[in-house]
Amino acid sequence: MDHLAKAIGERIRHRRKARGLSQDDLALLSGIDRSYVGRIERGEVNITVEKLYRIATVLACDPATLLPAATELYS
Amino acid sequence: MDHLAKAIGERIRHRRKARGLSQDDLALLSGIDRSYVGRIERGEVNITVEKLYRIATVLACDPATLLPAATELYS
Repeated sequence: MDHLAKAIGERIRHRRKARGLSQDDLALLSGIDRSYVGRIERGEVNITVEKLYRIATVLACDPATLLPAATELYS
Repeated sequence: MDHLAKAIGERIRHRRKARGLSQDDLALLSGIDRSYVGRIERGEVNITVEKLYRIATVLACDPATLLPAATELYS
């Protein structure tokens, strides 16, 4: 499921940049350790749904929009 | 974020029953420990996105449909 973590990380990074936020901003605003935010964006960690919601709140988007469709992962 | 785990657990249970599966079926098919499946459905654990995808695959639904809207959680 490595593809999954990478796909989510890419979506988070894309959305974060679109909002004009740095990784530090995202870390501070979500209460997630800054090095962990980096690992999330690189797809190195398998995040919990709770962290997904915290990140989505900061990025002002619906959590579901940060998830790739299941079909997209195995194509 | 207790509300979140409970809301996800309820959605999983609802979908599982709609598919005519027991908790044991879901555990076996998803490769998740059966007692853990019970804890997920009761909202006692904060699951990873990877487990959410495994469960959604077994329940033949899009993972996003198992997530409550953020607005729904704080109403």
